[in-house]
Amino acid sequence: MSARAGIIVTGTEVLTGRVVDRNGPWCSEQLRALGVDHESTVVVGDRPADILAALNWLAAEGCALIITSGGLGPTADDLTATVVGEFQRREMVVDAPLHEQIAGILERFTARWPSVDQESIAAGNLKQATIPQGAAILEPIGTAPGLVVPPPEGSGGPTVVVLPGPPSELMPMWDAAAQTPAFIAATEGRAKIEQSMLRLFGIPESEIAATLRAAQADGIAIDELEITTCLRRGEIEIVTRFAPSKQALYDRFVEFVASTHADTIFSVDGTTIDQQLAALLSGPPLRTIALAESCTGGLVAARLTEMPGSAAYMRGGLIVYSNEAKSKLAAVAPEMIEQHGAVSEEVAVALASGARSVLDADVGVGVTGIAGPGGGTEQKPVGLVWCAVSLASGELVVRKLQLPGSRQLIRDRTTTVVLHMTSRLLRENST
Amino acid sequence: MSARAGIIVTGTEVLTGRVVDRNGPWCSEQLRALGVDHESTVVVGDRPADILAALNWLAAEGCALIITSGGLGPTADDLTATVVGEFQRREMVVDAPLHEQIAGILERFTARWPSVDQESIAAGNLKQATIPQGAAILEPIGTAPGLVVPPPEGSGGPTVVVLPGPPSELMPMWDAAAQTPAFIAATEGRAKIEQSMLRLFGIPESEIAATLRAAQADGIAIDELEITTCLRRGEIEIVTRFAPSKQALYDRFVEFVASTHADTIFSVDGTTIDQQLAALLSGPPLRTIALAESCTGGLVAARLTEMPGSAAYMRGGLIVYSNEAKSKLAAVAPEMIEQHGAVSEEVAVALASGARSVLDADVGVGVTGIAGPGGGTEQKPVGLVWCAVSLASGELVVRKLQLPGSRQLIRDRTTTVVLHMTSRLLRENST
Repeated sequence: MSARAGIIVTGTEVLTGRVVDRNGPWCSEQLRALGVDHESTVVVGDRPADILAALNWLAAEGCALIITSGGLGPTADDLTATVVGEFQRREMVVDAPLHEQIAGILERFTARWPSVDQESIAAGNLKQATIPQGAAILEPIGTAPGLVVPPPEGSGGPTVVVLPGPPSELMPMWDAAAQTPAFIAATEGRAKIEQSMLRLFGIPESEIAATLRAAQADGIAIDELEITTCLRRGEIEIVTRFAPSKQALYDRFVEFVASTHADTIFSVDGTTIDQQLAALLSGPPLRTIALAESCTGGLVAARLTEMPGSAAYMRGGLIVYSNEAKSKLAAVAPEMIEQHGAVSEEVAVALASGARSVLDADVGVGVTGIAGPGGGTEQKPVGLVWCAVSLASGELVVRKLQLPGSRQLIRDRTTTVVLHMTSRLLRENST
Repeated sequence: MSARAGIIVTGTEVLTGRVVDRNGPWCSEQLRALGVDHESTVVVGDRPADILAALNWLAAEGCALIITSGGLGPTADDLTATVVGEFQRREMVVDAPLHEQIAGILERFTARWPSVDQESIAAGNLKQATIPQGAAILEPIGTAPGLVVPPPEGSGGPTVVVLPGPPSELMPMWDAAAQTPAFIAATEGRAKIEQSMLRLFGIPESEIAATLRAAQADGIAIDELEITTCLRRGEIEIVTRFAPSKQALYDRFVEFVASTHADTIFSVDGTTIDQQLAALLSGPPLRTIALAESCTGGLVAARLTEMPGSAAYMRGGLIVYSNEAKSKLAAVAPEMIEQHGAVSEEVAVALASGARSVLDADVGVGVTGIAGPGGGTEQKPVGLVWCAVSLASGELVVRKLQLPGSRQLIRDRTTTVVLHMTSRLLRENST
């Protein structure tokens, strides 16, 4: 690939982590899909000097295209357009049609806030309509237009695409940006690159290193593929980038990994465990599910219902944080809790079957554990979790976990394990 | 502040967004707390040339301290230590005591995986014990040690702190890193900077711009404070950084904002709505809570139970995705659902009081809506949500929302609104 690009994400709130950046990764993915090599993302605060330094660096690194996000708002600390104008040595001018268009948007927008200060609205309007001369304008989604700012005539410098910070405004502008002449000129020579992902669950990352060596020894030229492995939320992801001409080689590699790790590979097509479980529940045949969660407190239900269409199979969930709720909602016998404790194999199984029968579902899930930081004992330390999944047809799987880490990590990891347990049990019992 | 620092986050998985970076923001916060000026974070893939380019740039920008995260694993694509060694012109050497220490960790670790490939383990062990000569070693949390690598003698270059990628390994190493002589030397001249945050809910961002101008007009020299505003999950955050000598000025500013926006400001001390609601429920007096969630599908419960100690007040939750579950679990009359529809004011109120009485709680929350993408009609479009909160003492608040955006956004925003509604109602009814 010869076309190179860099991304600059601006905003003190992103630099310091109050806001998680979604734009950098998303733009990276778009660039990859276009066959443009994305080398690095620079995150800077709202200081103009820092934005300018990042522009200069990426240009010096040979980027022909630079994408910026953020700093297009109506307030005084939003300075990206001005800095990019300076970088491209273009005068800042008010674009009259744009000024009018934004005024129209603001009128509709401020109708909801009758007491709004009109002077501040007008100042913001003027600011957002002031753009580097010669820039292509991308239709505003909110009130901020995007900009594609070409380099100074004959300079050979990069084209800069200036996009707003809110992902819901940035994303819809991408296609228009990619169709501007300056964008196309900057990405000449791009070549399509495939990217594909394998996902495994339940093995350590070092095993993958051994498998890669074994594949090479087996005559699969994996050095012609760009392979990265990564442990994420307890799952291992193997991401491979390759030229379309290497598809057959990649297919051989996938076959090798799949046969070596037949018991732990669960996805060869990029699908997540969430999507797979949704497909298994959707059927045919449709299988309904019900949950009773203690320590995960709704996280399993929230992940299940994140999938569009989950209403078809999601019967309901019981969040049974207290012993009373376990008995009252999921019909766990108080004597059982007294005898074995709320965090026990018996109670996990009873929660699963209780949820199933109370909500008349095909699949029941029960989770009970100690997420901490308090509540642990020597016999039952923080991180101990019992998970059970049972089917109306009688099949049952139970798992005891002893998880390290924070409350958040324990709850998150448990949720992932439960999705995998449920998915496996359904796959094994599919008709 | 004279001490400047930069952060380099490595990993193709972070660059392309498969993994959300938590390390950059976290390290930024630590630097700020130390009074070190953090200018920018560079995210690069696993390519050594890109890591080296980022090191060179930050050094050229005048950073006396550079923090890297990631690329310390046992596999061949983990190259950060080697690149930093090259950057600091230090030979790579095997540290014998470290080699032995990691071997011990691996022995305990691999006991869980009996079938593991011993050769790959040994190779990873050797790799992780190979470090730039003269680097200070930070005790491994997993198997990767952290490193503090001083510049070449007399070069005046930056100290590089090399930390592992998993946040659970990186974070515990920070304090040890900050106490090494090379770190201390690199951050000489640092000056304490305060950072404080105001949070508001329910007003547009442009109002804040107007308030800032009004404060200035009122004689509050806000240009001596570094103020950034940001809209996040429906809440506005005003973050101010200032020298400790400007505390009185900041206090005047807070007073001005609080009196201008008395009805929408909810936090002046950095606390989140989650923490405030937890405190209100914990009491005294203790107030127990129960939920019945339809479209949020467990998200409200998951956020409530994310707080340590929530077991004290969290009676339980009902996830009532289906009409049957609404009736069976939360005692909503089927006739009511038939007459008004599942997404209606009546059903939201019935869910709140149903959850409350079924679980014998002081506070009941009911949520029902259409998160989409399917299921909308002309009368009840996607994004329509009814939320209700009721107290055993009879107080009730109901809100109708019409939210834009994706399924995820609608569910997330609804969750935030519900936490604010509950918090306000409890504050108004505290004794």
